[in-house]
Amino acid sequence: MIYFDNAATTAIKPESVGKTMSDVLTSGHFGNPGRDSSNYSVNSSLLVEQTREKIAQLFNVPSSDFVMFTSNATDSLNTTLKGLLKPGDHVISTNYEHNSVIRPLEQLRRNNVDIDYVPFDTETGVINIEDFETRIKSNTKAIVCTYASNVTGYVLPIDNIGKLCKKYNLLFIVDAAQSAGFIDIDIQKQGIDVLCFTGHKSLYGPQGTGGICLKESLPIEPLKSGGTGIDSFNSNMPDEFPTRLEAGTMNVPGIAGLYEGIDYILKYGLNNIRQYVIGLTDEAIDGLDKYPEVKIYTPRTGLRTGVIAFNVGDLNSAEVGQWLWDEYQIANRTGAHCAPKVLESFNLVEQGIVRLSFSSFNTSEEIKVFLGAMEELIIEYRKEI
Amino acid sequence: MIYFDNAATTAIKPESVGKTMSDVLTSGHFGNPGRDSSNYSVNSSLLVEQTREKIAQLFNVPSSDFVMFTSNATDSLNTTLKGLLKPGDHVISTNYEHNSVIRPLEQLRRNNVDIDYVPFDTETGVINIEDFETRIKSNTKAIVCTYASNVTGYVLPIDNIGKLCKKYNLLFIVDAAQSAGFIDIDIQKQGIDVLCFTGHKSLYGPQGTGGICLKESLPIEPLKSGGTGIDSFNSNMPDEFPTRLEAGTMNVPGIAGLYEGIDYILKYGLNNIRQYVIGLTDEAIDGLDKYPEVKIYTPRTGLRTGVIAFNVGDLNSAEVGQWLWDEYQIANRTGAHCAPKVLESFNLVEQGIVRLSFSSFNTSEEIKVFLGAMEELIIEYRKEI
Repeated sequence: MIYFDNAATTAIKPESVGKTMSDVLTSGHFGNPGRDSSNYSVNSSLLVEQTREKIAQLFNVPSSDFVMFTSNATDSLNTTLKGLLKPGDHVISTNYEHNSVIRPLEQLRRNNVDIDYVPFDTETGVINIEDFETRIKSNTKAIVCTYASNVTGYVLPIDNIGKLCKKYNLLFIVDAAQSAGFIDIDIQKQGIDVLCFTGHKSLYGPQGTGGICLKESLPIEPLKSGGTGIDSFNSNMPDEFPTRLEAGTMNVPGIAGLYEGIDYILKYGLNNIRQYVIGLTDEAIDGLDKYPEVKIYTPRTGLRTGVIAFNVGDLNSAEVGQWLWDEYQIANRTGAHCAPKVLESFNLVEQGIVRLSFSSFNTSEEIKVFLGAMEELIIEYRKEI
Repeated sequence: MIYFDNAATTAIKPESVGKTMSDVLTSGHFGNPGRDSSNYSVNSSLLVEQTREKIAQLFNVPSSDFVMFTSNATDSLNTTLKGLLKPGDHVISTNYEHNSVIRPLEQLRRNNVDIDYVPFDTETGVINIEDFETRIKSNTKAIVCTYASNVTGYVLPIDNIGKLCKKYNLLFIVDAAQSAGFIDIDIQKQGIDVLCFTGHKSLYGPQGTGGICLKESLPIEPLKSGGTGIDSFNSNMPDEFPTRLEAGTMNVPGIAGLYEGIDYILKYGLNNIRQYVIGLTDEAIDGLDKYPEVKIYTPRTGLRTGVIAFNVGDLNSAEVGQWLWDEYQIANRTGAHCAPKVLESFNLVEQGIVRLSFSSFNTSEEIKVFLGAMEELIIEYRKEI
């Protein structure tokens, strides 16, 4: 079996991730963090704080207090968008968004938040900074966008959008689900006010982890409120971060696993891993490029993620994907990828798109198996048309 | 070291919990559930579905589709309360609540939801069903209460509150953080419309897991929206459960761990475990009963959880708790326990309460160590007053 669906989740994690989580759960030394002065509590507090610090370093967050843990990027984005956008506000987003951005925004639209989606060029993939600027209005409060398309791997011009936000005094909210751990992110240098990330993709941590990083304090109304172990007689959540956004019991084993995932990236070098994975992507794209029937949606130039998006003639993407799995046990993803506006932009609502996505655990040999499979598929396809 | 803070989290989990989670993460066989037809996805889907079914059986939920996974009880309660209560609604709750109920309710009060808290008798612990009934108004929509006090272990008259809700056609929402896995719960027989539970306490699963069980379909507006892998061109969350309340990537390893935790309970028998743990509680209470300086807040009669709450004379609870840890390495919890109205009811806002809470991994020998420590503490206390 070959796993090429790492943009969904890296199914293979470093050994240390599972081992550490198992230790946390069964050693009997880890309680709930921040609740008392016993070693059980202190051990968990230290573990959570070390992970906060590691994430703060990774994204250049000014203080580990501005790193909040959530259960996934969707949780982070709902918390951020619903906690910051008020009736009467205008927000600019893009057609590259995942439903983790679109659906919360559309829920907010019913609460009188106005939304514009910036289109992209379907030939080049490029999204133009001018198309953001022309949409800015007097009530525009924020730009929210994904760092990179989960469908095509296109990386948005984050630095320039950050400058635009600074120029017009807008909040810049970035969905880093597809880039955290894969591309160097510096929220201070890039002018990112809120970075929403997930732990279980390119950070190689477990599902059930994610977070929010802030460049500075922001008046985010908590989406969830509850026990915090401090300030218990206050019927509101405490004002200070990270507590303000962390109601209830934390996912201590998950956070311990996330620490190990990040440690793995830093050990091998984020840029080394990216170079390796992009190498696999290039190999796959080069192999597919020789078939005129294959339409590739992933841009070849510029920074991109470890994704390749394509179709074969007019074959439905689900048919291609199922064939790759049935005949060669190559796991892939097809259909809409929870990114409806990408599919609508390409006019592929019916056909969908086949996506392969790679991690550091994939190999050149696996790409060769895939290309052999594609050779066979295309020969069959040519016979049929 | 002795761990007596199991009402916060069971720090020791069955070996199988850690082992299974580690396998899920590093075997390389588990992707994201419900996204494609590869074994990676199917394996995870099966694992999630098996856990749903196990939970449905445990609480007698009519269908596994009415079991939703969340990140903890706080997440479940915020989702339920904010998704069901609308401006103009009236809700009845109790002074036994944890901040996971009080804080969401108080957030809703600012959105024009009216709230009443039913008091309890501080001598007996009892909360009277009549005190609920007299508070019902024409706009009362729901009663929300904890199944058992996290501070004293008192179990509320859930069956009778359920009957009252049925009589007046009110929704019955129950916070089972302190009872799920410890007390037999049958949501159909008990008339519980929404059961909010956590996975990491008496269910012996990992932190980062919890859920919502429904007796039947309810118009819950999702607190979080995002990718669901289905119905992607719909800008709203799909209507059907469980998908409606499960946006974003699920905590697959956590859910796998929760399965093993529940399996452990069923293997030994929920009632056997409760009898064992209540036996430890009785031993501790019997030992403390002989000191007139010790005030015990845990009721001796009726169903209760594995908790004992007490104070020593006028000593601040934090002082007692710290001494138990420093001198005997007995982890315990002191202060307000995120239950401000319990402390206010007892007039203990300053002193707080010392709480010990036991699990199946505690032993009679540990209770004896605790009682020896208390003997020493009380001799010292008598010298000082």
